[in-house]
Amino acid sequence: MVWRVSQAMHDTLEDFKKYREKMNAKILASGNQQIQRFFNLDTRAYESGALSSKTKELLGLVASVVLRCDDCVTYHVIRCVEEGVASPEFYEALNVALVVGGSITIPHIRRAVERLEECEHLRKTS
Amino acid sequence: MVWRVSQAMHDTLEDFKKYREKMNAKILASGNQQIQRFFNLDTRAYESGALSSKTKELLGLVASVVLRCDDCVTYHVIRCVEEGVASPEFYEALNVALVVGGSITIPHIRRAVERLEECEHLRKTS
Amino acid sequence: MVWRVSQAMHDTLEDFKKYREKMNAKILASGNQQIQRFFNLDTRAYESGALSSKTKELLGLVASVVLRCDDCVTYHVIRCVEEGVASPEFYEALNVALVVGGSITIPHIRRAVERLEECEHLRKTS
Amino acid sequence: MVWRVSQAMHDTLEDFKKYREKMNAKILASGNQQIQRFFNLDTRAYESGALSSKTKELLGLVASVVLRCDDCVTYHVIRCVEEGVASPEFYEALNVALVVGGSITIPHIRRAVERLEECEHLRKTS
Amino acid sequence: MVWRVSQAMHDTLEDFKKYREKMNAKILASGNQQIQRFFNLDTRAYESGALSSKTKELLGLVASVVLRCDDCVTYHVIRCVEEGVASPEFYEALNVALVVGGSITIPHIRRAVERLEECEHLRKTS
Amino acid sequence: MVWRVSQAMHDTLEDFKKYREKMNAKILASGNQQIQRFFNLDTRAYESGALSSKTKELLGLVASVVLRCDDCVTYHVIRCVEEGVASPEFYEALNVALVVGGSITIPHIRRAVERLEECEHLRKTS
Repeated sequence: MVWRVSQAMHDTLEDFKKYREKMNAKILASGNQQIQRFFNLDTRAYESGALSSKTKELLGLVASVVLRCDDCVTYHVIRCVEEGVASPEFYEALNVALVVGGSITIPHIRRAVERLEECEHLRKTS
Repeated sequence: MVWRVSQAMHDTLEDFKKYREKMNAKILASGNQQIQRFFNLDTRAYESGALSSKTKELLGLVASVVLRCDDCVTYHVIRCVEEGVASPEFYEALNVALVVGGSITIPHIRRAVERLEECEHLRKTS
Repeated sequence: MVWRVSQAMHDTLEDFKKYREKMNAKILASGNQQIQRFFNLDTRAYESGALSSKTKELLGLVASVVLRCDDCVTYHVIRCVEEGVASPEFYEALNVALVVGGSITIPHIRRAVERLEECEHLRKTS
Repeated sequence: MVWRVSQAMHDTLEDFKKYREKMNAKILASGNQQIQRFFNLDTRAYESGALSSKTKELLGLVASVVLRCDDCVTYHVIRCVEEGVASPEFYEALNVALVVGGSITIPHIRRAVERLEECEHLRKTS
Repeated sequence: MVWRVSQAMHDTLEDFKKYREKMNAKILASGNQQIQRFFNLDTRAYESGALSSKTKELLGLVASVVLRCDDCVTYHVIRCVEEGVASPEFYEALNVALVVGGSITIPHIRRAVERLEECEHLRKTS
Repeated sequence: MVWRVSQAMHDTLEDFKKYREKMNAKILASGNQQIQRFFNLDTRAYESGALSSKTKELLGLVASVVLRCDDCVTYHVIRCVEEGVASPEFYEALNVALVVGGSITIPHIRRAVERLEECEHLRKTS
């Protein structure tokens, strides 16, 4: 058997989701209870409260773009689409990230837009 | 005359605002037109559009906390208060920043909360 | 009453500790339960387990230096001293941070060494 | 049709350029005027003025290496070669980035050098 | 001949090591003596001294995770395994990185765990 | 005796220089030879070679602004002035940093301009 790691950019959203689930399961199976609790806090941070889930997902998206993490951007793009973020809202949020974080965020914005297109493609073909 | 620069943390919001205005004026007077245009884009990024100013200021606040810039945090705290962000909304946004950005953001969150208190103090005494 | 915020660098370790406690208490009193849980995870991450508290505090110190957070560096310098980190160990850890994080960490290393001196000063005079 | 996103590292400079153009066109077609203006400012920042384009591209290269963005590094390597940056100049600029940004920049420096080789390869075979 | 650059995530540890050696050799052959000296300092920072190599590799791992550099994480995972870091120690170090650096480190932690598995796979099959 | 640490922003360039020298001397006196060698590489990185000192100081300035380190910015502003960087060159370099690094760099640009003014003030009064 030849071992091959996953690429940083997963070919499809489906691949991304599978990899994310598989590795999260392994990390949670490690027996480190504090990591489990952190993962739980991570999930709960985006639940509807005083702010809506939609607003929180936009916060997560902008934080991910300015910190320049492609996987985190992918995750929040998916979630934003699920929460009904419309295209002009999406671009206005990306513009805030671009102005705050500078041109260094542009490659991540390109990939965010590519993922957004993939979400729309999946919606049309499913 | 003894020259003294401003400290990174201004004593009061009033000091912060004065320093910000004074230095921005000097930068804009430098004759570099592109910096002027950037400053203009920066202001316009938070104007109401498909997303409300309130939502955009929350995006700016979270981006500033995860990138750990005290002056930017101060600015967006002031603007969030002006846009009517309520205390529980404020803390939920800070929680998203804390979870995304980790404990390294905590000193900035402490100073954000201190600035929030100062805004409330100013409102009561004015 | 004139409102004055704390400076980013507290004059003494005593000031740092008081400010940290005061603001943490305010944040925890805000009623945001998830922030409380995060603070709890933060404390527990450095407790002795498979790795000793001393090793974990060194990990926290190096992470704080490469991420360049003075308050976090101050906190872990205090804790490293309490865990018995000796001066050559301290400098070897700082050297790892310096090599990984580059010359941009040097101002933070200067302040880390100043805090270390203050810890030693307090030990001698108490 | 199977959807496949582009990898973070494009196989060839040709692929990089095509992807960059394709996605920039989509972003600019989104109708968000402020993003358009930012892209315009980004292009103009490297035009010859008081400083030469060559110096500005070196500034862009070093900024990209210390902020560790492979696509940005690729772009500025191409532009530096076009502006006539010689190999010893290139390595001296990379050395400044390495010293400022630390060993964490080394993987990006490896890829910068690989891209530089590709530019030289293209020049010889074209 | 079609030129193809290496992907940011190398398929196997073997690929990673070969690429790292090949590019380091090219960089060192460039004749820039200061880069050579930096590479030398980088190697020596993890040698046993007042702190053990094992502790220093854990410091390098945590610094790499909070600064979010996959290649650096891969390198320190390999070295941690060679220094005999046990699985619970590994996860406790990752937990410190996760708490300090936040959820933005999670994609890098997933890849760190995947590399750790590959190291274990190699040990069993060699 | 009351112990007081230095503030992150030194009141004057004279204070900055004294503090920098005092703490560097202490760090170098610690006996950690590798830190000494790093400091030496740091100094040498800006010496004239294939690129002029002036260009290298501009590289150092832009790297410091995008990484947002006030002390590093102060140091390179002083050095840029010594190398004869003229005001329009200075602002064009800051504009590159602003575009690459985004609005999050603005507070550091304000302080860079304040330091530049202080350098000019010193030149006139000395």
